[in-house]
Amino acid sequence: MPIVVVGSVALDTVETPFTRMDNVLGGAASYFATVASLYDQVNMVGIVGSDFPREHLDFWRSHSVNLAGLQIQEGKTFHWHGRYHMDMNTRDTLDTQLGVFGDFHPVVPEEYAQSPLVFLANIQPELQLEVLHQTPNAQFTVLDTMELWINIARDSLTEVMKQVDVLLMSEEEVRQYTNQSSILTGVRHFFSLGLKYVVVKLGSYGALLFGADGTYFSAPAYPLEEVVDPTGAGDSFAGGFLGYLSMVQPEAPGRYAIDDLKRAIVHGNIVGSFACAQFGIGGVASLTMKDIETRYQELVNYSHFDPTWNNQAK
Amino acid sequence: MPIVVVGSVALDTVETPFTRMDNVLGGAASYFATVASLYDQVNMVGIVGSDFPREHLDFWRSHSVNLAGLQIQEGKTFHWHGRYHMDMNTRDTLDTQLGVFGDFHPVVPEEYAQSPLVFLANIQPELQLEVLHQTPNAQFTVLDTMELWINIARDSLTEVMKQVDVLLMSEEEVRQYTNQSSILTGVRHFFSLGLKYVVVKLGSYGALLFGADGTYFSAPAYPLEEVVDPTGAGDSFAGGFLGYLSMVQPEAPGRYAIDDLKRAIVHGNIVGSFACAQFGIGGVASLTMKDIETRYQELVNYSHFDPTWNNQAK
Repeated sequence: MPIVVVGSVALDTVETPFTRMDNVLGGAASYFATVASLYDQVNMVGIVGSDFPREHLDFWRSHSVNLAGLQIQEGKTFHWHGRYHMDMNTRDTLDTQLGVFGDFHPVVPEEYAQSPLVFLANIQPELQLEVLHQTPNAQFTVLDTMELWINIARDSLTEVMKQVDVLLMSEEEVRQYTNQSSILTGVRHFFSLGLKYVVVKLGSYGALLFGADGTYFSAPAYPLEEVVDPTGAGDSFAGGFLGYLSMVQPEAPGRYAIDDLKRAIVHGNIVGSFACAQFGIGGVASLTMKDIETRYQELVNYSHFDPTWNNQAK
Repeated sequence: MPIVVVGSVALDTVETPFTRMDNVLGGAASYFATVASLYDQVNMVGIVGSDFPREHLDFWRSHSVNLAGLQIQEGKTFHWHGRYHMDMNTRDTLDTQLGVFGDFHPVVPEEYAQSPLVFLANIQPELQLEVLHQTPNAQFTVLDTMELWINIARDSLTEVMKQVDVLLMSEEEVRQYTNQSSILTGVRHFFSLGLKYVVVKLGSYGALLFGADGTYFSAPAYPLEEVVDPTGAGDSFAGGFLGYLSMVQPEAPGRYAIDDLKRAIVHGNIVGSFACAQFGIGGVASLTMKDIETRYQELVNYSHFDPTWNNQAK
């Protein structure tokens, strides 16, 4: 089932302690679309400038990404320049140039109207709301955000939360938004807003799924020897999560079997691990389903244990 | 099978952001013995002063803890005073009074000689070596330590590592000892010393088991709404880990089935979660096997997922 995504498409400068690359393809919608299009059609909504390399557009077109909703406007593409610290977990934003993104208002093409899945990747909450209003037939909506919007656009972010099914957040973002040190307590606050699920991303420790119905699932991370570049790992996670769900039948419109939601989280973790293992979008650009399947089986072996609590209980 | 443990027995003053308690039972060997004696007999080696309350000794005697190796000497019991920060993950040591611990040399009683399992809880590596020399029939030896000994007694700590089967370490300790940011790379260093297994404790994120034979297992943490006092969580983890192994038959002397090693880690995480949920040793002092079994089944439900990577693959 096709997925609508709205989010940033960017040309980034990324510095790690070991390397630097300029004007590489970046942005939340870029990572998401590249990953999710492995599973099904992705209908992109966004904007780029006239400097945006044609090769990226050609790459997406050849990968079931529909670009009808990607505006191409005279001017500069959104540019982010970040530098990772030695631990690769924290980073500084050195520069942000909005370019054509500054006056952007998303327009969802008619041909996207029947997409049942909608991913609101990390952009201004006001723009996320504009997309929600243009996708009234959406049956399963997922929201991502970042620290910046919790700080400067909390009210409109809260308004988006009230209108979606699933919230993706890092552990730090949960603490920041809810002002609770306990993640379990913090997550309950989100359910009071009407959310059905909250996915807490733990980086190298995996991810947690919480359901308003009491569902709880702890998904293991895929172990990586080395993190080359964590840029886009969260957006790739979302691409694996929604991508997997786009492949399966819901139990009812907008309602997925718990086994499928768990699988979706594991897919997200696996795709996130690929994203971190190479620089920029390189880690996911040539990913195959076979790659994902292989790591899935490894994760089963790495994390499952005997369901009987002692070997004499058998 | 009985387990020999050597480590500190203390009277602690513990401050958290919410409470403070003075002269509560503490020390690595105390937590370990209290937990592991749920599973089998624990043979304690250590020292206390003449101020050590008789009630603690009575408690252990009634819980299959053999105190023949616990020296009681005129003077003060080892005293630690610590204060946890708001996040409950970091703490400051405000005071340490060695008391009778200052001149301590462990003496392993004759009656402990046939114990196949030995746990070297956190104390000076030199004392851990003294115990190893007095337990030549040990078949499975497990080592715990702390940042202090990595800093001031690295050589003798390394000597202990070369003589044991399993090393327990926090993620930070692995990084500190190996000077590697990658845990996977760091762990390989330990295998070069001859260790068979390394267990990396991740606190609220669970624990990882690495085997020199390539074994890798990621064990989920039991989710806690609130951490009341993390003191002793690592020692309790060790008590659940070795306690579980004391209950089962090894495949060969000193060699356990991988399913049992995985179960042992899960037991460790569960017992660690109980330790954190109440102040001081209160969280594990009245624990029952039924409590552990219940959380074990919960963790199976919380962490297992369908082993087929997509629901059409079935």
